Amino acid sequence: MKKLVTALACVAFTCPAVANPGPPPTLEARADLALEADTMAWGFVEGITTEVGPRQAGTEAEKRGRDWAMQWLRNAGFENVADEPFDMQTWVPGSVHKAEVVNPYPQPLVVQPLGGSASTGPEGVTAEVIYFPSIADLQAAPDGSLAGKIAFVSHAMTPTQDGSHYGYFGAARFVGPGLAAQKGAVAIVIKSIGTDYHRNPHTGVIRFPEGVAPIPAGALSLPDAANLERMFQRASGAPITLKLTLTPRSLGTTTSGNVVGEIVGRDPSLPPVLVACHIDSWWNAPGAFDDGAGCGIVAAAARLAGLGDQRLRTIRVLMAGAEEVGLFGSVAYSEAHIDEPIAVALESDFGADRIWRFESNFRESNPDLHNRLAASVARFGVSNSTIVASGGADINIARDQGTAIIDLQQDGTRYFDLHHTPDDTLDKIDKAQLRQNVAVWTQVVGILANEPKNIQTGQ
Amino acid sequence: MKKLVTALACVAFTCPAVANPGPPPTLEARADLALEADTMAWGFVEGITTEVGPRQAGTEAEKRGRDWAMQWLRNAGFENVADEPFDMQTWVPGSVHKAEVVNPYPQPLVVQPLGGSASTGPEGVTAEVIYFPSIADLQAAPDGSLAGKIAFVSHAMTPTQDGSHYGYFGAARFVGPGLAAQKGAVAIVIKSIGTDYHRNPHTGVIRFPEGVAPIPAGALSLPDAANLERMFQRASGAPITLKLTLTPRSLGTTTSGNVVGEIVGRDPSLPPVLVACHIDSWWNAPGAFDDGAGCGIVAAAARLAGLGDQRLRTIRVLMAGAEEVGLFGSVAYSEAHIDEPIAVALESDFGADRIWRFESNFRESNPDLHNRLAASVARFGVSNSTIVASGGADINIARDQGTAIIDLQQDGTRYFDLHHTPDDTLDKIDKAQLRQNVAVWTQVVGILANEPKNIQTGQ
Repeated sequence: MKKLVTALACVAFTCPAVANPGPPPTLEARADLALEADTMAWGFVEGITTEVGPRQAGTEAEKRGRDWAMQWLRNAGFENVADEPFDMQTWVPGSVHKAEVVNPYPQPLVVQPLGGSASTGPEGVTAEVIYFPSIADLQAAPDGSLAGKIAFVSHAMTPTQDGSHYGYFGAARFVGPGLAAQKGAVAIVIKSIGTDYHRNPHTGVIRFPEGVAPIPAGALSLPDAANLERMFQRASGAPITLKLTLTPRSLGTTTSGNVVGEIVGRDPSLPPVLVACHIDSWWNAPGAFDDGAGCGIVAAAARLAGLGDQRLRTIRVLMAGAEEVGLFGSVAYSEAHIDEPIAVALESDFGADRIWRFESNFRESNPDLHNRLAASVARFGVSNSTIVASGGADINIARDQGTAIIDLQQDGTRYFDLHHTPDDTLDKIDKAQLRQNVAVWTQVVGILANEPKNIQTGQ
Repeated sequence: MKKLVTALACVAFTCPAVANPGPPPTLEARADLALEADTMAWGFVEGITTEVGPRQAGTEAEKRGRDWAMQWLRNAGFENVADEPFDMQTWVPGSVHKAEVVNPYPQPLVVQPLGGSASTGPEGVTAEVIYFPSIADLQAAPDGSLAGKIAFVSHAMTPTQDGSHYGYFGAARFVGPGLAAQKGAVAIVIKSIGTDYHRNPHTGVIRFPEGVAPIPAGALSLPDAANLERMFQRASGAPITLKLTLTPRSLGTTTSGNVVGEIVGRDPSLPPVLVACHIDSWWNAPGAFDDGAGCGIVAAAARLAGLGDQRLRTIRVLMAGAEEVGLFGSVAYSEAHIDEPIAVALESDFGADRIWRFESNFRESNPDLHNRLAASVARFGVSNSTIVASGGADINIARDQGTAIIDLQQDGTRYFDLHHTPDDTLDKIDKAQLRQNVAVWTQVVGILANEPKNIQTGQ
């Protein structure tokens, strides 16, 4: 045990002066010890949330985040650490975010702009609110029926372990603003796409259809949305008037970038294992769950899985830029590296709660490896699954190359309490669950990095 | 059961057309039914939080709150409903509340002004922050040592069922700003006096000593305070610079008021039972827990306890104005009514979670009544206690008259998660626990209102 602790301590940059520490412990021992004692992932997420804070895509704050991450990776022994730049159109939230019921129940409501929202100008817009209990109700509204009005779209999202309510109920945000604009609305507010009861709105990006000019679009906190719904019940059909002031703006073209780093493998002829996360966050939080933790997990696992000279393949870390606002970093990475095959890709971008399910997209083509990987993490409380992994936002390259993908599914039960809100802060991370993530990732990445055969085909 | 439901339904303003509903149910039956079916308290707090919202003392919003409450009391059958005005010096928070770490880890922190804070002016103040882990550390700082600095005072408050950590750790807010001002600080920020982990600061009033000019004083949310503490750990002694912008201002003398209403008793020669709460809230929340729920509980209990013509004594409801900013309403009520004896006073101002303990200040002088009251609510999960009740903020008159006081202690375990934060919204109220409050209050107030002897002496 002492030797293991020493080995891990060395990884965690506080290596005592030992003349000959001996061979590194086995992969299984390293994963087991990570469960009990890893401090690297925590160190990453504590550091970046404390020393950098929010990292809105395309801004100098994101740049500070990339610089911080590169320094961390170099300190941790990664090679080929770089910032691969790309241009993007950059939206920033501005400084005024206000909503106020003017009639019949005057009071302020807590609102934040959705990503890509237009500005109301500092004078705001004041208009009657039209209430739609669901996105389907908005879809059913006649064309032109919202002329001069503010749409208010609600939903009935609940917490789910697999996070699947996000894709379904998230439509109020993804497409609600575009639909409202097409029907003539001067602005839209939505019930935040989330599952908590705090006065912290959930922002997130909007998909305005081609040719539809953005309108001002805000997220009300869940308690404020519930309050507005009660006002409609109590007003008995009398009009409810809202004054909305949101002042986001465009910075035009700025530079973002993808941070990369490698634990170089023994056989450069073998394609690397790609482990990904994203380095940007929304402006309103330091991005602990989304996705500082993910970057800490993949970097710690790469380091632990690649300890000593045991790995055959290179393990490449990708900390993508500008994920939140449109997956720009993931797209740029794929474009830049499409001709460099990768063996397999995995991403961590769903918080820091425990991994509960193993999925791959090669269960049928390489059942031996799939089952070996699944079995290797069962001791950490992870089940096998027949669901075909499709990967997350940051590994476009794997989908574009049609290569192997693994999803280490995290428990999302409380993820949407925090997602894209000011509440996404360090204190939300459970250290024991974070370590379980590192243990599972270390085990899986370690097997992959030492797999001599093609991971997708087993040949 | 049907008769009971009808009786309660009549109280809840939806009385069906019944020619002769018969005599009202017994007090015990009414209290039992309140536990299962009361909707009056919820109706009050849902209504005032939805239709009025925040009710900062001395403002027109508080006036709307009083008007709303008076209308509600009249609709509920209360007599002698009135708004008893008093003048006050009125502080409002202004519109700019910003804190930003300038060096070495630039990022915004979430802050709100404490009640009575001075303004930094719109340009803000920028200064080095001096960290004090506790109020004792600030007290130990030499005079003048904070000249030109911003003090940052933390604490280690934890949730307690009886809320006792508030009085102890709350010193960082009560006296911290005055101490910092006396030692030369240009401003102070404190770790919010609270027990949650959300980005919603806890405001609250400051006690500046006589002759000490107020300085700008803000509450950081708990996650932001923790972040600032980590910065001090990481900065290794390098100075940390903060820019603080708070723009509260004084409205000068304005009018607040106390709302009163009565369920008149059969014997006007007997002093009334006074049941109290406060109608104002801080600007940052609609005041559901603090104290919309309390007003709903005492009003519902007064109505249920006084049902039909069963009560001997008048039950008077006092919904005090301007409690949060300095108990001005309670003081004004006592001054105005000091010569009108009351029999006993009770207050509800500690949220809406269940009552768990019965206390009075007449256990020794009138043990029969004390024990009868305690025994009457044991079935609702309430224990007897030897603690001597001292009453809450809104019943100064009882202390000034030296009369009987009862404390129906609520479970405060989560009270300081919400207290004085934007998160004090309707959704935090557990309807079942709210009904338990109404049941206990109905039982106790019903006994008191029919007690022919002096409550304090038993003579």
